[in-house]
Amino acid sequence: MKALVCRGINEVSVEEVDIDPPKSGELKIRMVAAGLCHSDLSIINGKFPVSLPIVLGHEGAGIVEAVGDGVGGFEPGDHVVLSFVPACGACRECDSQRPHLCVSGLQMGKMLDGTSRVHAGEEDLDVMQYLGCMAEYAVIPAACAVKIDKSIPLEKAALVGCGVMTGVGAAINTASVIPGSTVAVFGCGGVGISVIQGASIAGAEKIIAVDVSDDKLELAKRFGATHGINGVREDAVASIRELTDGGVDYAFEAVGNAKLMETANESTRRGGTAIIVGVGSLSDSISLNALMLSTSAKTLKGCFYGDANPKADFPRLLNLYRAGKLNLDEMVNKTIALEEAPAAFMEMESGKSMARSVIVF
Amino acid sequence: MKALVCRGINEVSVEEVDIDPPKSGELKIRMVAAGLCHSDLSIINGKFPVSLPIVLGHEGAGIVEAVGDGVGGFEPGDHVVLSFVPACGACRECDSQRPHLCVSGLQMGKMLDGTSRVHAGEEDLDVMQYLGCMAEYAVIPAACAVKIDKSIPLEKAALVGCGVMTGVGAAINTASVIPGSTVAVFGCGGVGISVIQGASIAGAEKIIAVDVSDDKLELAKRFGATHGINGVREDAVASIRELTDGGVDYAFEAVGNAKLMETANESTRRGGTAIIVGVGSLSDSISLNALMLSTSAKTLKGCFYGDANPKADFPRLLNLYRAGKLNLDEMVNKTIALEEAPAAFMEMESGKSMARSVIVF
Repeated sequence: MKALVCRGINEVSVEEVDIDPPKSGELKIRMVAAGLCHSDLSIINGKFPVSLPIVLGHEGAGIVEAVGDGVGGFEPGDHVVLSFVPACGACRECDSQRPHLCVSGLQMGKMLDGTSRVHAGEEDLDVMQYLGCMAEYAVIPAACAVKIDKSIPLEKAALVGCGVMTGVGAAINTASVIPGSTVAVFGCGGVGISVIQGASIAGAEKIIAVDVSDDKLELAKRFGATHGINGVREDAVASIRELTDGGVDYAFEAVGNAKLMETANESTRRGGTAIIVGVGSLSDSISLNALMLSTSAKTLKGCFYGDANPKADFPRLLNLYRAGKLNLDEMVNKTIALEEAPAAFMEMESGKSMARSVIVF
Repeated sequence: MKALVCRGINEVSVEEVDIDPPKSGELKIRMVAAGLCHSDLSIINGKFPVSLPIVLGHEGAGIVEAVGDGVGGFEPGDHVVLSFVPACGACRECDSQRPHLCVSGLQMGKMLDGTSRVHAGEEDLDVMQYLGCMAEYAVIPAACAVKIDKSIPLEKAALVGCGVMTGVGAAINTASVIPGSTVAVFGCGGVGISVIQGASIAGAEKIIAVDVSDDKLELAKRFGATHGINGVREDAVASIRELTDGGVDYAFEAVGNAKLMETANESTRRGGTAIIVGVGSLSDSISLNALMLSTSAKTLKGCFYGDANPKADFPRLLNLYRAGKLNLDEMVNKTIALEEAPAAFMEMESGKSMARSVIVF
């Protein structure tokens, strides 16, 4: 089968590889769609160092092709969206109803038993986050599959596996945005737009989009932003304070830029909450004033995977899509073939792309 | 009347001053007890710069002496604990059930109408946080008074006005510590001990006290700590991780030291919460890794006044005291006269004092 393999910094190409049948507790999925996400790019450009070579892809949807021993609840032909954290069901986090923090999520590259299913000749390949779903097939832990209704187009459903879940979840799970509240979203890429949609669904009164691109700010308004601030031309914090009588209730950083994380925190009102959704660089840090921490009574929350419970939240978001409340159709504005993925990642790296690309197999 | 007045850095003494009768919306209180708190000390030593001269004291209890026009619900003889934030009942924060963040709390030194009630001859004196309760009498906004049962000794009840409310509130309101959880408390002064008591009342399984004084660690165990770590001899984070299989659910910083705030954050597990209770210095800042913010999914919360709703929480804590669950008796280990307060603050400044002193009039 064909798979998108990263073998070094900026060394990414489609290769012909082999894939094993599913072992006990696993499923083989025929991939139908896989979204391009910044975390894939961070492996390609080396910002997120992992063991190589690796099959990319951690946001996808497909159809069950084969079911391993001991797997209940799935049969060939089932439509599934993939979660990149296989909740083991046995650790403290799973027991605490926080499956997105399952300890299994910290392991990278192999299956749960520590071995590989994908090979290039004699060579074992790692797969990104148990999935490696930028490939015609993926063998994954059954705990990573969430069955969905067959009426939902899989190239839309795929987005819910990472970017949309992360952004919408940041608003409705991590922050628990309440009706009538005020929100600022820093960064209007796929995740930022999803935060805006989540805040809008949750009934926020003002949703202030902040970006350096006027085009992205216009796009943000189509998804629910009530105001747009161009961070190049305006002092975002001052403008937000003026629009909200002193600061927003919730600010979201959806870029991964340390300076912007500080700005998000500054833009909240006394007692407000800043949610860090963007994945920053290991070499950067943010600075917070020691006096203001207690006296301003603010909260700073890191958000991983939108605090998702995939088994409950993926269907919930897809119900919102069917009800016309979550706009997935306009979030995919480019479908590409697997062979076009390397070029699409280079375009994403340039930062200027407006495209939210999904590979369709 | 006599009052403790600060006129410059380390210039603090008991002065004979005059006090006006209460105006509309105000109460005159005959003070019975006033606790010595680090925030008073921060005014004395200049760490917390305010307009001077000022009558110190923001943690106290007393008996209503006179009732101003238009004040309902109080009569002379009522016993009250003082809150240092007069919830105006009309701002966004009061409307949002967060009276401790009422905008009035940001104003310092004068009454709500911007004038003074305490005078030294022709000179108007400010009062700390609407109270200035280190004086024989205080004229205060009625919104700062919380009526309590007369059976409760006022020198114990006074503590609930600041230190105990802040610490217990940090645990039960800000963090909402849940039964069976794990807690670390950095700093075992009056506030830290109160956090420990709050965590214990809330049913925490492990409560790990961290301090540099073995005596304070022993004291902490009397108030509910299950483990003690001396930060001089041990690597606190490593020890906490070992005791809790990777980190505590909640860590509290109750000193106001920037480095310790970072340590508290490090000591929590993935998805854990650090609560900053200590008031740091305006010239200090803390540093957090930009990558770890999202991936470790931690929460950092600033705690002001224990997220208190004084009208509900003061009686609630005093009920716990009467039920034998909140130990206030051993928290006051020294009662002093007003004249002894300057020396007691100098002893507090030395950092070695184990005393939790309360002025009794």
